[in-house]
Amino acid sequence: MAKNATPVRGTRDILPDEMIVRDRLEAAILKTYTTHGFQRIETPALESLELLLDSEGGENLKMLFTILKRGEKLQLDENASVMDLCDIGLRYDLTLPLSRFYSNNRQHLPMPFKAIQIGNVYRAERPQKGRFRSFKQCDIDIIGDGSWQAEVELIDTTAKALQEIGFENFTVRINDRRILTGMMAKAGYETEQMGAVSVILDKLDKIGAQGVLEELSAMEQGPEGAQRLLDLAEGLSAGDLKGQGLDETAVEGLVGTMEAMEQLSQGKYQVSFDPTLVRGMGYYTGMIFEVSYGPYGFSIAGGGRYDGLIGKFSKQSVPAVGFSIGFERIVTILQEEGRSRSDALQRLALLYDETDPVARVVEKADQLREGGFAVSVMKAKKKLGKQIGQLEEAGFTHLWIFGRDEEVQTLGGPNGS
Amino acid sequence: MAKNATPVRGTRDILPDEMIVRDRLEAAILKTYTTHGFQRIETPALESLELLLDSEGGENLKMLFTILKRGEKLQLDENASVMDLCDIGLRYDLTLPLSRFYSNNRQHLPMPFKAIQIGNVYRAERPQKGRFRSFKQCDIDIIGDGSWQAEVELIDTTAKALQEIGFENFTVRINDRRILTGMMAKAGYETEQMGAVSVILDKLDKIGAQGVLEELSAMEQGPEGAQRLLDLAEGLSAGDLKGQGLDETAVEGLVGTMEAMEQLSQGKYQVSFDPTLVRGMGYYTGMIFEVSYGPYGFSIAGGGRYDGLIGKFSKQSVPAVGFSIGFERIVTILQEEGRSRSDALQRLALLYDETDPVARVVEKADQLREGGFAVSVMKAKKKLGKQIGQLEEAGFTHLWIFGRDEEVQTLGGPNGS
Repeated sequence: MAKNATPVRGTRDILPDEMIVRDRLEAAILKTYTTHGFQRIETPALESLELLLDSEGGENLKMLFTILKRGEKLQLDENASVMDLCDIGLRYDLTLPLSRFYSNNRQHLPMPFKAIQIGNVYRAERPQKGRFRSFKQCDIDIIGDGSWQAEVELIDTTAKALQEIGFENFTVRINDRRILTGMMAKAGYETEQMGAVSVILDKLDKIGAQGVLEELSAMEQGPEGAQRLLDLAEGLSAGDLKGQGLDETAVEGLVGTMEAMEQLSQGKYQVSFDPTLVRGMGYYTGMIFEVSYGPYGFSIAGGGRYDGLIGKFSKQSVPAVGFSIGFERIVTILQEEGRSRSDALQRLALLYDETDPVARVVEKADQLREGGFAVSVMKAKKKLGKQIGQLEEAGFTHLWIFGRDEEVQTLGGPNGS
Repeated sequence: MAKNATPVRGTRDILPDEMIVRDRLEAAILKTYTTHGFQRIETPALESLELLLDSEGGENLKMLFTILKRGEKLQLDENASVMDLCDIGLRYDLTLPLSRFYSNNRQHLPMPFKAIQIGNVYRAERPQKGRFRSFKQCDIDIIGDGSWQAEVELIDTTAKALQEIGFENFTVRINDRRILTGMMAKAGYETEQMGAVSVILDKLDKIGAQGVLEELSAMEQGPEGAQRLLDLAEGLSAGDLKGQGLDETAVEGLVGTMEAMEQLSQGKYQVSFDPTLVRGMGYYTGMIFEVSYGPYGFSIAGGGRYDGLIGKFSKQSVPAVGFSIGFERIVTILQEEGRSRSDALQRLALLYDETDPVARVVEKADQLREGGFAVSVMKAKKKLGKQIGQLEEAGFTHLWIFGRDEEVQTLGGPNGS
């Protein structure tokens, strides 16, 4: 019986045309990051399960792919926990691995260290449109600069990368975890309730203000507390954050960032303060940001400051802030907007017969390559007309039949002239 | 207590300098493959465990990383098998995933289909020098051409990629599984013994002819059979393969390939027939090849024909042949030979104070970027001389102090002028 050839649930195969687009996008993002002084590094997709489970990864920890221990007798009974069975997990983001990396290699790294990471992360999410279980992220992080100017640098660089690949009129939404908790405190919520309140507030995009109000109302503070919180959020604007009794450092950083970004964005994209922005991860400590674009219900980039994470690996606390572009979402949008056409490559098919001397054929191909063609050698079929039709359909733009042609033939397919 | 920051056993972190080299190598290999008419695709690192276990992957199947089932009650008792606990595994090569990919997407692919795959594979090997548990492979495959001219095309393209990244004087060793089994039959071994004989012969590099002789002697055919086989192997040369009673198609293909490669290599690298070449995977059906280089005890590339693998996914059998460059080994060799220096990038540090207007600083950075510099903005420290020394050490070649300098300062570090 033939085996099932579909990819594992929630993952996908990538065909040649999309791959050209992806490689081009990745190169453009990498180039922007590099010219802005960031340096690429790479960490393994495999991380210690213990590390992953203790990483304040929020909901992501429920979606870990974990790897069975190898070469040892497993404790196989009803009470076995995942840590009894597994010792490794697949990374769910690039931030935790970067924190580990920095601590492991800090003696070889400059201070501040500006990292680029481009790689796949894995989450066993319920598959849905634009969401996959294996997906690529493009991250930049600044480690060792605790000032809000680092946030400006990250937002500016990410916005330039997005513009470089053709996005404009997106909105960078900014908040600060300390402003968020200050607002909750003002509305009468206790420190230990703030996790729960954040989870509800985070659903604003999905369930709307009315939904949030209903869910919040079920808490001890009742409908009054819920209404107080939403009123506070609605009333806050970046202009009047000062003098509200909120964390002064947070307010100063947020106002400074907004002002600088106002100047740098030059109206080509929006930067707005969003007091309801939460972001799922528990490791954020300061400013947080997300990029929204058009009618899409998902953010195309997100990040924030995580000053406590690196300190877990070393006695010394090191400030850090990062911004991640969701590569799959970018690709999805460009495809939906019909902007993902791959640049037409000059592709030439060099047809030959089994009786032709193959070394000569390859030498001919090399000659044609020097003329700028991507040349594929292949056998001529008996039904030559049909074969040429198939070549056109497959994206070949030019043809040379070995032993017959004395100049390059142009094909009339979708990419032909 | 500070957490352990070292990567998972057998995996490694990649630092910025090496990453520049790796990106450059990958781009050069990809470009060679592309100009030769191959098209890049990508498959997930996750594959169905059932598929992996039934893939004739030889020793690799003992080194699978397998992923615990999620969201269902596990059968946790002494009798639980890996299939009871796990449903997914990490790919151990790129050939099986390509076969699945081709069957899943063939209606969208040209015939023949020439694939490029560049990606990481995972094997829980005992870690040793130059061998990692997560490592990158760069593969090309031709699907849908059963003639030996496809082998010539693959060997030629792989050799060109190796030359493009600075390798010369390597040796492409070629054999054919059908010649190998024919030779074993002539030496008196039975079909069902050939797997075991192959495993022993495959150790030739490691244990030498004497070691192989000893291990073979323990089989039913005794020392005489063992000696017969080694004598046969030693006596065989590409020039006199014909008329030995070996598989005629195999001999014709091997001789044709050797002749064509003789002409194409132009003496810049060697192509030799090696009747003792085995290669581990069970899925090979015809010609097999490996590339040796210098004194290194490992091959830097390997591949072969696997005409049966795609047929497992669909009723129709489709011929296929592939060649894989071992990326980590390439990098290891270039590092050992001191040829891995990253091209000096023009890296400029733009220093500013917290009191400087950050938007202006970023605008200045953009100006300098237009002059071709990779510009990193960062805070000036009080001890400026010490900071500049650190910048030079970190590879910065140029400096601009905001509000002070009116032209770019050249630094005197390792990459400076």
